[in-house]
Amino acid sequence: MKIYGHPMSTCTRKVLTVLAEKGQEAQFVLVDLMKGAHKQPEHLARHPFGVIPVLEDEDFTLYESRAIMRYLDHKLPGAPLTPTELRARALMDQWLSVEQSYFATPAVKIVFQRVFLPMQGKPGDEAIVDASKAEVSKALDVIEKALAGHEYLAGSSYSLADISWMPYLQCLVVSKLGDLITDRPNVGAWWKRISERPAWVKVSS
Amino acid sequence: MKIYGHPMSTCTRKVLTVLAEKGQEAQFVLVDLMKGAHKQPEHLARHPFGVIPVLEDEDFTLYESRAIMRYLDHKLPGAPLTPTELRARALMDQWLSVEQSYFATPAVKIVFQRVFLPMQGKPGDEAIVDASKAEVSKALDVIEKALAGHEYLAGSSYSLADISWMPYLQCLVVSKLGDLITDRPNVGAWWKRISERPAWVKVSS
Repeated sequence: MKIYGHPMSTCTRKVLTVLAEKGQEAQFVLVDLMKGAHKQPEHLARHPFGVIPVLEDEDFTLYESRAIMRYLDHKLPGAPLTPTELRARALMDQWLSVEQSYFATPAVKIVFQRVFLPMQGKPGDEAIVDASKAEVSKALDVIEKALAGHEYLAGSSYSLADISWMPYLQCLVVSKLGDLITDRPNVGAWWKRISERPAWVKVSS
Repeated sequence: MKIYGHPMSTCTRKVLTVLAEKGQEAQFVLVDLMKGAHKQPEHLARHPFGVIPVLEDEDFTLYESRAIMRYLDHKLPGAPLTPTELRARALMDQWLSVEQSYFATPAVKIVFQRVFLPMQGKPGDEAIVDASKAEVSKALDVIEKALAGHEYLAGSSYSLADISWMPYLQCLVVSKLGDLITDRPNVGAWWKRISERPAWVKVSS
C-alpha cells in the first residue's frame, strides 16, 4: 500500500495513526505542498480535488481521510478501531462527523494564522483566531459534557473518532491555545490519555 | 423512534429516505425553523449545535445526519444500504465524505439565494450563486467520471452515498440549475435512476 501525503498534514496524520495503531506500515510518498505538488496533473489524477492524503492499494485508489481510516481499520489485522456494539458505533460516527462539521475547519484556521503564516514571515490575523477560537471552544464544550464518565468519544473503547480529533487538538497546542484543552477537565484527561499512545507519539513527533 | 426535523431540510430528508427505503416509519416531530425552534433550550438539549435532524431511540439520542443514516441502516431490517464488499464500502464512505466536504455547502448556498430569500421577498445574490455553481460543477465533474460504467456511487449497489447526494441535487433542480445534472450523461442517468425510487418520491413530494 502507498500513502500519498505530507507528515505535517492533519488528514495525513489521521491515516498514519490508524496504520501505526495496527502495527502496519505503508510506503509513504511525500506530496510537497510547499512546491504545490498537490495541484499538479500527476496528483490530480489520483485526487481530483487536489488535496491529501490518497491511499493506493494495488489497483484501488481511495481519498478522503475518514474513508481511508475506515478502510484500513476494516482491512488490516490488529485491534479493531470501530466498536461492534450498535450505539457505540453510532457515537463514533457522530463524533467523526462533528469533527468534520464543526471542529476541523476553525482549528486549521487557527494554526494557519498562528504558525504557518509567521513561518513564512507573514503576520497572522488575530481577528480570525478569535472567531475560530469561539467555534472550537463551543465544540470542546460539547465533548467536555459528552466525555463525562467515559474514557473515549465512543464510550469505553478507543476508536477512529478519537484519532480523527487528535491532529486538530494538536493544532491548538502548537498555536499556544493548549489551555482550551487543559482547562476542561474531561477533555484534558482524554487528550492526555490518547496523546500518550505510542502510535500518536510516533506519528506526531 | 422519533425524528426531530423539518420536511424541507436536506439533512432531514436523507434520514427520512433511509427510513422509507427500509419500509419503516418513525414519529416525526417538527422543529419549526421559521420560528427559530432549533435555537430554543428544548432543542439545544437534544442537539447542542442547534441544527436538525436528531434521532431519539428510547433513551439513546443521536445527531449528525450521516451518523443517523448509518445507525438506521445497521439497526433496521430491510435491504442493506451499506455494501459488504470492502472496496465498495470504502467508495460509499469516500462519496459520503465528498458530499460533506465539497458538495453540500455550495448546493445549499444556491438554494438559499435562489429560493429561500426570494420566498421571503428578499433578492438573492447571483454572485454567490455563480461562485457556488463553480464548486458544485467541479464535484459533478468528478462523479460524472466516477459513475462511468457504474449504476451507483459505490458501484453496483444503491447505498447511503446515493441517498446523501439526493437532497443537494434536488437543491439544484428547484434553483433552476437542473441542467448541471442533465447535461452530464452519467450524472443525469444516475439522478433519474435514484430519484424515481418510491422512497425518494415519498420523502421529496
